[in-house]
Amino acid sequence: MNHHDRGLKTKAHLIAKSLLPENQETPIHFLEEKITPRSLTFRRNHFPYPKFPIQPFFLTITGSVKNPLIFHYSQITSMPSQTITALLECSGNKRAHFEPKVFGDQWKEGALSQGNWKGVPLSYLLSLTEVNTGAREIVFLGDDSGVKDGQHVHFQRSLPLEKALDQHVIVAWEHNQKPLSPKHGFPFRLIVPGWYGMASVKWLKTIHVINHSFSGPFQTDDYVYYPHKSEDKDSFPVTTNRVNSIIQHPLDRQILKPGKHEITGLAWTGEGVITSVEISVDNGVTWKAASLHNPTQKYQWVKWSISHVFEKNHESTVKVRAFDSTGQSQPDQAFWNRKGYGHNQVSQIKVQIEN
Amino acid sequence: MNHHDRGLKTKAHLIAKSLLPENQETPIHFLEEKITPRSLTFRRNHFPYPKFPIQPFFLTITGSVKNPLIFHYSQITSMPSQTITALLECSGNKRAHFEPKVFGDQWKEGALSQGNWKGVPLSYLLSLTEVNTGAREIVFLGDDSGVKDGQHVHFQRSLPLEKALDQHVIVAWEHNQKPLSPKHGFPFRLIVPGWYGMASVKWLKTIHVINHSFSGPFQTDDYVYYPHKSEDKDSFPVTTNRVNSIIQHPLDRQILKPGKHEITGLAWTGEGVITSVEISVDNGVTWKAASLHNPTQKYQWVKWSISHVFEKNHESTVKVRAFDSTGQSQPDQAFWNRKGYGHNQVSQIKVQIEN
Repeated sequence: MNHHDRGLKTKAHLIAKSLLPENQETPIHFLEEKITPRSLTFRRNHFPYPKFPIQPFFLTITGSVKNPLIFHYSQITSMPSQTITALLECSGNKRAHFEPKVFGDQWKEGALSQGNWKGVPLSYLLSLTEVNTGAREIVFLGDDSGVKDGQHVHFQRSLPLEKALDQHVIVAWEHNQKPLSPKHGFPFRLIVPGWYGMASVKWLKTIHVINHSFSGPFQTDDYVYYPHKSEDKDSFPVTTNRVNSIIQHPLDRQILKPGKHEITGLAWTGEGVITSVEISVDNGVTWKAASLHNPTQKYQWVKWSISHVFEKNHESTVKVRAFDSTGQSQPDQAFWNRKGYGHNQVSQIKVQIEN
Repeated sequence: MNHHDRGLKTKAHLIAKSLLPENQETPIHFLEEKITPRSLTFRRNHFPYPKFPIQPFFLTITGSVKNPLIFHYSQITSMPSQTITALLECSGNKRAHFEPKVFGDQWKEGALSQGNWKGVPLSYLLSLTEVNTGAREIVFLGDDSGVKDGQHVHFQRSLPLEKALDQHVIVAWEHNQKPLSPKHGFPFRLIVPGWYGMASVKWLKTIHVINHSFSGPFQTDDYVYYPHKSEDKDSFPVTTNRVNSIIQHPLDRQILKPGKHEITGLAWTGEGVITSVEISVDNGVTWKAASLHNPTQKYQWVKWSISHVFEKNHESTVKVRAFDSTGQSQPDQAFWNRKGYGHNQVSQIKVQIEN
């Protein structure tokens, strides 16, 4: 990540989309590591940061449970833990690429980071409180709040009970071997691998078990796919990460010298694992399989590469499409939706070859 | 520039376009200051950085002069000095906005920074060496070098004698009250206010007076406007900054609450001064004059603003055009050229008004 150019450090930084609230993307084209450093993990906020320090550090589980419980930080962190490596991707990632264009933060490809998360499985916590028969959803309340549509609200999201009991859903207190940072959810953050980032509620304060469907503004207004420009019909909720990829090298519109170049990048999906990545250097006429660098693992991106000899005086359109084990692949055309979620169109760059 | 969000610092950083060589743009939408901090001044390099430290620190003036001279750093820095506030803009600034798209680093609006530069007027140095009759151009050689078109070359640019003798052209050794940083040209950098940044040669080592026209690759191949896709005819050199502007607030595709908002930004030009800035909030049908915040000064940007009441449930296209004292204004359509220089189309954003 830090390049050294004759003794001078050259480093890519977070890329600001807005500062109040803070929304910055990861310089993903310039990262080589499997784990995104904490300082370069993308920041996506709906409201100003909660007041720090948040004390005392309690997590409450209440609602439709047999034993409502309040856990102190020291209790949570001494429970049986699990560490998972998982990527988080904002559902607005690549929003800037929608055509026609949509409103909202114009994320390019870097609302995407991968981290190590250590925490207690949510299912373990729920086994202590026990869930009543008839429970349908679990609502997660973050300590971040502000005015939305004229109302003062907290950021809140729900999961269906079934997903909440998935063994990989954890209440994390560590990120990359350190306590969560204030900007990424200290003291507790829900981590929901395989779902877009909005599900991984930061500054988690209260877990509420309910017998009905939750309908907060971040559940039924935002984070909903609206396929029509003006009407709300045919809408459905944003959940799992769609199969996706980025080309890290070359860069779009880069001028390359003739000869052999490595084409490299990342591919990922929410359900199942990546099974193959295909590259076309002739604008989609023919496709070849790229090499996958690490064994494909659930919830993690896989690095891929292929080398290609580019000929002189030539423009080349490079396309990449990833396939996953559930039979999904990147579409030729993104699924357009009014709020701009889940863009996963076949990745494309154009390069020029010059001497 | 540093916002504080409940005790947490939120800060915009340089935005990487490439790291080897280092090309990073200023987060210009998020800067308020008149003077861009050194750490956020855009970095545009053609080659890896020169080896540091560059010692001994000499500047040679030779060629068609009566008295060829070699100056030591301490001599230069004890000469009569001049301090100027001037912006530097890369001629590739806004390249990403050309349609049809062009190749090269995809700069958005931030290949633009403003600094305080202290140095000795070039005309003073040339008065010491004296220039021979018949001298036509002055060639400036930087210490940065590498392979271009199969040849090992230094970055070199020339100025016509008349421009070189302009009292505001200086050999700078200070940037924002400190010695030049290694990344921005230490020990010496030519500063040519009013011309695009390629003229302000970094790591300046040799000044060569010639009786003919200089034809290095950065003079007659790059930094040339080629109006046609495949042919070189009608080409002409890149020189002065075209009249230009950016909208800093709101951001493109931002969702705003109904009510009064400040529309703010910067405007600048290479020759003359900015005389007015006009805003349209109805996609160019009607225009109003914006307020100019500081007296317009040559070689500096002017901050402008206008407030506007945005109505609910509405999309609005905001356009901005600047006018200068030489009669130039931003065109409705950028002057397309193959290498993507001098983009100065009327600035435009689109916002959505939601409750």
